[in-house]
Amino acid sequence: MRATLHQLEQTIARRRSADPSQSYVAKLTSRGRAKIAQKVGEEAVETVIAALSGDTADTIGESADLLFHLFVLLADCGIPLDSVLDELERREGLSGLAEKAARPD
Amino acid sequence: MRATLHQLEQTIARRRSADPSQSYVAKLTSRGRAKIAQKVGEEAVETVIAALSGDTADTIGESADLLFHLFVLLADCGIPLDSVLDELERREGLSGLAEKAARPD
Amino acid sequence: MRATLHQLEQTIARRRSADPSQSYVAKLTSRGRAKIAQKVGEEAVETVIAALSGDTADTIGESADLLFHLFVLLADCGIPLDSVLDELERREGLSGLAEKAARPD
Amino acid sequence: MRATLHQLEQTIARRRSADPSQSYVAKLTSRGRAKIAQKVGEEAVETVIAALSGDTADTIGESADLLFHLFVLLADCGIPLDSVLDELERREGLSGLAEKAARPD
Repeated sequence: MRATLHQLEQTIARRRSADPSQSYVAKLTSRGRAKIAQKVGEEAVETVIAALSGDTADTIGESADLLFHLFVLLADCGIPLDSVLDELERREGLSGLAEKAARPD
Repeated sequence: MRATLHQLEQTIARRRSADPSQSYVAKLTSRGRAKIAQKVGEEAVETVIAALSGDTADTIGESADLLFHLFVLLADCGIPLDSVLDELERREGLSGLAEKAARPD
Repeated sequence: MRATLHQLEQTIARRRSADPSQSYVAKLTSRGRAKIAQKVGEEAVETVIAALSGDTADTIGESADLLFHLFVLLADCGIPLDSVLDELERREGLSGLAEKAARPD
Repeated sequence: MRATLHQLEQTIARRRSADPSQSYVAKLTSRGRAKIAQKVGEEAVETVIAALSGDTADTIGESADLLFHLFVLLADCGIPLDSVLDELERREGLSGLAEKAARPD
């Protein structure tokens, strides 16, 4: 069965309290929120570069890295994935351009 | 019922072929992949800044923007969300640090 | 005569205290450091994309934007350009790989 | 005497053709433009985070890293620093907001 993003969220929640010498999530978390946020920024840059290079396998890998680190950051901020999904649902009901116009600058 | 990320993927797929004057997705897509990728990079920067500022509502909003634009980019690259989920599942089975070690630099 | 980066620094220092309705630097500065930092991140993403697209004029323009906004950020942080040049000089004396090794991770 | 950014440009030009096992510039250059561009993006993210954390020494160090890698990227694109300075001079003569208005979106 396919992994879901809620399973990823749960896995990250569990690993946060693991031994930092055994778990990448625990180790990264122990370095603080600025370091986690830095990884989100870096993986986004790598996703941009992979997508522009047209390499599908790289783009999949970097997108997975970006999602993974975004979820570690959300966990560190105490934000459930469902809060982000609710926000997306709230916007999705709006038509595309209307939605953009509805955002504060 | 809660929106899922697969619903977001389907909504974006539909909107890609909509009238660019009516749909933000269609309009952004018409500007080319470099412009979509640029938005992914920008939204990641905004997510980093929101998370470091400690503003929960901003972090939720920017994370939603980041996911949204990442999905527009994946659609433009012809990459299904399931390919990214499969990659995450493949890695999730690995323990945290082992997984990191398994990645090429 | 050619503009120097020290002239750019002085111009930005002057404009910071100008009327925000007349000066882009004053207007951006009035929005706070997070907004200035966001611009640095965004211009870096645009520089990356321009360089990868191989468009020389775009790369020059985006690099100018990146330098400009980096200097606005340094001014906001009260950091003189000379402090950054001193740091570059300190490192430049070191050979390339040695210098990299000398940095904390 | 203080290092100038033109000296940095010359140093990087020399090191590009050095032995990659002896020079960080040569080693990074040998990995290709996408890798250099990635470093520019990453150092920008680190500069953003350092500036927001309010740590002056970190902000100086990350700004130096960002300038350094931007110059490696410009060298790889065959763009002289003077072309970027000319572009800045062209814009600097314009008043702040006018300059912003003069840029294409």
